[in-house]
Amino acid sequence: MRDFLPAEKARRERILGIIRESYRAHGFDEIETPVMEDSERLHAGLGGDNEKLAFGVQRRGLSRDDLQSAEQPLDLVDLGLRFDLTVPLARFYATHRAELPNVFRSIQLAPVWRAERPQKGRYRQFVQCDIDIIGEPGIQAEAELLVASLATVDALGLAEASIRVNDRRLLIGMLAGFGFAPDEHEAVLITIDKLDKIGPDGVVAELGERGSDADAVAAFRAFLLRPQTREFLPFGEQAIRKALPDGADDAVVATLVELGDAVAAARGEDAPPLVFDPFLVRGMGYYTGPIFELAHPSVPYSLGGGGRYDGMIGRFLGTEVPATGFSLGFERLVDLVEPPAASGGAAVALLHDADAPLATLLALQSALVARGDRARLVKRAKNTKLQLENLAEQAFTSFAFLGADAPASVDDLDLRPLD
Amino acid sequence: MRDFLPAEKARRERILGIIRESYRAHGFDEIETPVMEDSERLHAGLGGDNEKLAFGVQRRGLSRDDLQSAEQPLDLVDLGLRFDLTVPLARFYATHRAELPNVFRSIQLAPVWRAERPQKGRYRQFVQCDIDIIGEPGIQAEAELLVASLATVDALGLAEASIRVNDRRLLIGMLAGFGFAPDEHEAVLITIDKLDKIGPDGVVAELGERGSDADAVAAFRAFLLRPQTREFLPFGEQAIRKALPDGADDAVVATLVELGDAVAAARGEDAPPLVFDPFLVRGMGYYTGPIFELAHPSVPYSLGGGGRYDGMIGRFLGTEVPATGFSLGFERLVDLVEPPAASGGAAVALLHDADAPLATLLALQSALVARGDRARLVKRAKNTKLQLENLAEQAFTSFAFLGADAPASVDDLDLRPLD
Repeated sequence: MRDFLPAEKARRERILGIIRESYRAHGFDEIETPVMEDSERLHAGLGGDNEKLAFGVQRRGLSRDDLQSAEQPLDLVDLGLRFDLTVPLARFYATHRAELPNVFRSIQLAPVWRAERPQKGRYRQFVQCDIDIIGEPGIQAEAELLVASLATVDALGLAEASIRVNDRRLLIGMLAGFGFAPDEHEAVLITIDKLDKIGPDGVVAELGERGSDADAVAAFRAFLLRPQTREFLPFGEQAIRKALPDGADDAVVATLVELGDAVAAARGEDAPPLVFDPFLVRGMGYYTGPIFELAHPSVPYSLGGGGRYDGMIGRFLGTEVPATGFSLGFERLVDLVEPPAASGGAAVALLHDADAPLATLLALQSALVARGDRARLVKRAKNTKLQLENLAEQAFTSFAFLGADAPASVDDLDLRPLD
Repeated sequence: MRDFLPAEKARRERILGIIRESYRAHGFDEIETPVMEDSERLHAGLGGDNEKLAFGVQRRGLSRDDLQSAEQPLDLVDLGLRFDLTVPLARFYATHRAELPNVFRSIQLAPVWRAERPQKGRYRQFVQCDIDIIGEPGIQAEAELLVASLATVDALGLAEASIRVNDRRLLIGMLAGFGFAPDEHEAVLITIDKLDKIGPDGVVAELGERGSDADAVAAFRAFLLRPQTREFLPFGEQAIRKALPDGADDAVVATLVELGDAVAAARGEDAPPLVFDPFLVRGMGYYTGPIFELAHPSVPYSLGGGGRYDGMIGRFLGTEVPATGFSLGFERLVDLVEPPAASGGAAVALLHDADAPLATLLALQSALVARGDRARLVKRAKNTKLQLENLAEQAFTSFAFLGADAPASVDDLDLRPLD
């Protein structure tokens, strides 16, 4: 877990502000849920492996008897810190459905916690940026998610981002076509998900070791090693057809084509910045339809992703509600982008001697603030040059020296540029 | 703990934004610390009664042996959720001192957690807004805190706010003058702190029951019941002198007078919106100098407060560092103020039929966003009148109907006002 010092905190807040404003402009509404959820809900099987990483919050008023009769640590907790924003969203929607629009477009920009082993680039507290559309079964929802997310990434100054696209139904159809038994689809997908890490040979080897039907593995292997498999054509019907085995679900393919057309139209481009990837899996087991991953040529890892999860809200609500979501990898984006500096007035350092009258100093500061500037009173140090350099580093843009004869009006300030 | 729905979340974020910008303009820098601190640090005696309300986060990898050999619940936790922002700030400053300015002006706008019994107006998760100045021993720090906080409250549209002022040193001097023994000062202050709740008779009775020296109680009673005691004069030397017993510390009085002059000058007013209150105590035991409480005529409770706590940082750092802080009661302010609506473009609802082309809809949305508007695609419902009313309630300002013949350009949109 990290502290954020002023410069980094300001950067993070600027990036959060850009994301918030961009999604809001695209019609999404921000919500907030408490950082803790009931332990039972967190451990209901919707969070995959992340559930195991949930921090447990100890029950209040535990007696020594409670401690000694506990069989396992979870017996002593009733709340836990959320490990993602999807479980809380499902709970939120189930609680407040009557107060929300029929199609609810949510933004959540908030921290989550996972008890990861300390290692580089893994934090135990980090911010997630999720948007979700609940209540819309059609591809319009995915089109809105992708258009808004691409516009947001544009606003962050990240040109050339693209989105890998697949559909869980195509994956399942492909596995069935090769002859994998339905009850091993989930396990096979987990292996295919490792393609980027262990390569085609690794995937085929792992499928063999797992004891899948040899003919199915051979068919999959042949398909995976086709020359055209990793040859990504401009997104559209032809590219999707070429990347899939024969017999792919026409309706699903047509839906993805419609998605690409909508994204291209929204961006005023001939082709959308989408890539169809028949082996994109996404880790979570709850996906049921189109799935996505945000990529950028400057980094080998994904910068976000998401997909449709039509079954999940029903687990909390009792009735099925369609839902799809997209999550920007905020911490990775923070490392990558340099957001435009906040606009606004000057940032003025009033460097004063000890004998400058306090009332005058505060009146000058207030007058500068009133005209839209940022102003800080700073006691003048012996090494003024170093002090001015430090202030410039802190993004102050001008300064004035003030002594016992400090002027009463900002108009009489001798302001000089800092750089 | 509460969920925040879109309208309330937007209000809260607007208020947070106003507070953040106002304090930033006055030269403060925002920082952020993790929500969890080491349990030992949280329970080091700096949080007063709030320490008992800290949520404990269970240690990882607890075995059944650990559970059964635990003597008390705290044996099983190594982290806890912060119950205030002062303990984390002291820890932050001790960790990062070398990277911070000599005089460090911090903003923290962040949630804290307390395991309160559920009751009206008490939340287990709530936001605190703290500003602190670390490293400045003089009254300039207090002047900056009060000027910035009053300007912030002004910016929130809360006219007529005032700040009650006292000084711990004057309180201690008063008690010593009446003949209370030094070792009972802390306990006597806790009783005086109840003056607003139990009245002068209640305070005197409680001091008697406590077994304080009868002459001291009698002297205090006589002073408390003077007619002029609750007669608040315009802030200044005369008011302070009249409100105190003879023999008050001249240097402290002069400091408070200087504070008032500086606040008045900054606000361009003859008298500052301060009130000297010789019985203002503030709950926490760590205060060492000037103390404050923000008041407003529309509510009987305080809207914030703070004071100087010169000894506290030293507990973490080993060396003494002067510090003073002010905390706005964010949750109370949220209930009280109606922040100015966010400025910006229109909010447009594109009400479309099922046969409106998806690509056209998304292109129109993107074009509206590009020109600075907010735009949401909304499927047209049977009861359009009710739907339009709902959209107006959600602060949408205009709408258009779109069918199969939806125009390709925003210029051809038939936008109509919503109200």
